[in-house]
Amino acid sequence: MTAFDEATAVSADGDGCYHVRPDERFAIVSGDGAVGAVNGGVLLATVLRAALHTSPHPHPVATSAHFLQVPRPDPAQVRVSWLKQGKTVATARATLLQDGVPLLETTITTGTLGDAGDGGLSWTGQPPELPPVEECTGLAASDGFGAPAGFAGHVDLRLDPATAGWLEGRPAGVPEMRGYFRLREERAPDAYLLALAVDALPPVVFGLAPVGWSPTVELTWHMRAVPAPGLLRVAARCRHVGGNWFDEEAEVWDSAGRLVAQSRQLALLGRAPRGKRPRGGA
Amino acid sequence: MTAFDEATAVSADGDGCYHVRPDERFAIVSGDGAVGAVNGGVLLATVLRAALHTSPHPHPVATSAHFLQVPRPDPAQVRVSWLKQGKTVATARATLLQDGVPLLETTITTGTLGDAGDGGLSWTGQPPELPPVEECTGLAASDGFGAPAGFAGHVDLRLDPATAGWLEGRPAGVPEMRGYFRLREERAPDAYLLALAVDALPPVVFGLAPVGWSPTVELTWHMRAVPAPGLLRVAARCRHVGGNWFDEEAEVWDSAGRLVAQSRQLALLGRAPRGKRPRGGA
Repeated sequence: MTAFDEATAVSADGDGCYHVRPDERFAIVSGDGAVGAVNGGVLLATVLRAALHTSPHPHPVATSAHFLQVPRPDPAQVRVSWLKQGKTVATARATLLQDGVPLLETTITTGTLGDAGDGGLSWTGQPPELPPVEECTGLAASDGFGAPAGFAGHVDLRLDPATAGWLEGRPAGVPEMRGYFRLREERAPDAYLLALAVDALPPVVFGLAPVGWSPTVELTWHMRAVPAPGLLRVAARCRHVGGNWFDEEAEVWDSAGRLVAQSRQLALLGRAPRGKRPRGGA
Repeated sequence: MTAFDEATAVSADGDGCYHVRPDERFAIVSGDGAVGAVNGGVLLATVLRAALHTSPHPHPVATSAHFLQVPRPDPAQVRVSWLKQGKTVATARATLLQDGVPLLETTITTGTLGDAGDGGLSWTGQPPELPPVEECTGLAASDGFGAPAGFAGHVDLRLDPATAGWLEGRPAGVPEMRGYFRLREERAPDAYLLALAVDALPPVVFGLAPVGWSPTVELTWHMRAVPAPGLLRVAARCRHVGGNWFDEEAEVWDSAGRLVAQSRQLALLGRAPRGKRPRGGA
């Protein structure tokens, strides 16, 4: 069992309640060793596990998440209630709580992802262009992103050098981020790992300027296909930064060249740390 | 008071309950006069009105909606409960119900949209390119989109001819839709009209092939700026159609050239009507 599977484990307690524990092993650790919030994708994967436990359909096709409070690395609960259980789709509300206070509110619609060869209408846009993984920049190895502890110690991200200039204090001037993603432990991608992948890249705004921790306020992601084993490619762009807010849209493509997940999040812009390069995480 | 404001009116009944009524004037009417479902954006605007009634912040910055059942044009209720009321953002769950059955489940985060000139980091991507409105194709005037009744009778959409070939049985071969949007009645855009605008274009898949009614399963939209008076420009694209699902991402730009709203929805692909051109609506 990988650290990721341990960190996202749920234990059913009846009546749609699940015991969970936000895991500090997936917290963002800054360069000076300070432990920050647990990565939002890990929390999402945890809540998804609880919802899929009683779902009549196998795939979380649409997950909307509003992040309310930062959880502590202590016992927590997920409460799942089904609003609809239809033949084609089912929808649940699932809430992560600590001491009765909601920390993460999600609505999850599950369904079945058909095969591309099912004879229906089929069309896909252009995939992102990435250089070979050997030419990409490992993040944990860099002194600009923080120690290989916490989140960075479990996730193997290799950034396209075209979007990695900020690591050396030279942001590209465009809010884009692209890279290869996998866990450091051997583990094939699935819906839970996709929930992690959509929020795994450094914030797109690092491509413009150093900013501090920029909390995700809302993130919605769609699962579009069951991923093939192997490395995932993640490409994120932004359409607007202003008035203290920015959006971030990520696409995840699998090793077979299929678009397997899409997300968009809205985040609050962090303040630039004085005299510091950015050291935050996704 | 415009028909849109009447159709989205809410009447408070205490304890976060509101009386509403899905309005057949905004239902999709097909070419043969059959009245279909009320446009999803009108339902969204109704639920937003109820949530904003008790919001501590003025702008619905992030709204996630899961569409569960099609409402009847009969009395309905919206129930609003606040999960968080913070200094910067507040989050509510708001549910549209009929006879106690949830039809539309939303989570709404409100906040304050700052001015572009607030001195913070600012960046915006390229706006969509549209020909002058005089060169665009009015939809209700066309025999390919249905009678100017229902939704089409209240909304003035002018499609970019490059994305309107499907009206004449010649789809462009790309799932894109672009056009100008306003109400037929004089009314300045605001958050409620943006909720309508993000779901107002014909489905992007009409650019590929004729398909039948394609129900939205989930739609999330972000308000990015307070819109200036005047025509709105809406541009929608798609990234993947397959396995009976497709996504649709819309951007709304105001007359001052600002990105004012972004959305993405996931929808089920309708079956092609036999021997018919598409006659559905957004």
